[in-house]
Amino acid sequence: MDSGGFKTPVEDRYFEDYVPGSVHEFGMITIQEEGIIAFGKQFDPQIFHTDPEGAKSTIYGGLIASGWHTASLMMRECVRYYLPRVASLGSPGVDELRWNLPVRPGDILTVRMTILEATRSRSKPDRGIVESLFEVLNQDRKVAMSAKGVNFISCRSPKPSEPVS
Amino acid sequence: MDSGGFKTPVEDRYFEDYVPGSVHEFGMITIQEEGIIAFGKQFDPQIFHTDPEGAKSTIYGGLIASGWHTASLMMRECVRYYLPRVASLGSPGVDELRWNLPVRPGDILTVRMTILEATRSRSKPDRGIVESLFEVLNQDRKVAMSAKGVNFISCRSPKPSEPVS
Repeated sequence: MDSGGFKTPVEDRYFEDYVPGSVHEFGMITIQEEGIIAFGKQFDPQIFHTDPEGAKSTIYGGLIASGWHTASLMMRECVRYYLPRVASLGSPGVDELRWNLPVRPGDILTVRMTILEATRSRSKPDRGIVESLFEVLNQDRKVAMSAKGVNFISCRSPKPSEPVS
Repeated sequence: MDSGGFKTPVEDRYFEDYVPGSVHEFGMITIQEEGIIAFGKQFDPQIFHTDPEGAKSTIYGGLIASGWHTASLMMRECVRYYLPRVASLGSPGVDELRWNLPVRPGDILTVRMTILEATRSRSKPDRGIVESLFEVLNQDRKVAMSAKGVNFISCRSPKPSEPVS
């Protein structure tokens, strides 16, 4: 499996592998009408997510993916390529989630993660906090969705080798 | 259908119906192990979302819903009870999305929306911008998830009756 631009595969990835300033691009999501409608019917039954004909007369001019569908597909790729397999300790949330461009049937999406900060916890030095810029790019290399997210990640070396912040 | 604490049903709801300071609570989501695993396998295949046995040895001590699953379920209830059926013009995004508490099998969730601001557009006075605090409450009335979101909504009266901001 592609290691998403990291030196270590997800199976052996820890806090120390998340280097601020590094950029990781991975995944290839081909989004199809069938998947857009299935997600829309289950979770976001607005006409522009569920009905290709009805969607034509909306402001979007056709079917688009629910923003939560795009976010969930991004998450899938992050689990495959970005987050550590055993060292992931979850996330408290995301900020500035933006749906910049509609995602339409046939779009091909990739995920680009930029590591903004990586800070070892002062109170629990066996783990750290990684802040990332998440971007979903379409086939035109335009940002269709973006967010800033925080992940808690276990350290490979429980004892820090340098002063902690 | 319950109108979610509004005077108007979703079919006849417009920007003017979103009154700052008003609180709307609606929906009842019973979240089950089967649904958590299905969503997890499709979009967030971390062990604490997909494997009830394996999840026991994680920091969560058992299966929990993907945060994106909780968000998507919240969206479903918002489409049913909160957003206008014909006047919804989409959303640019959300801020401060927080997963405050794990959501576990058997939890019963409701959605509470507080309208923070409602501003008629100056440049396009046929529509307005509604900012809401989204909260997902569990059966103990604790906030399991929260976010602040913005929705663009068409006005019932294209011409404002008072000075626009």
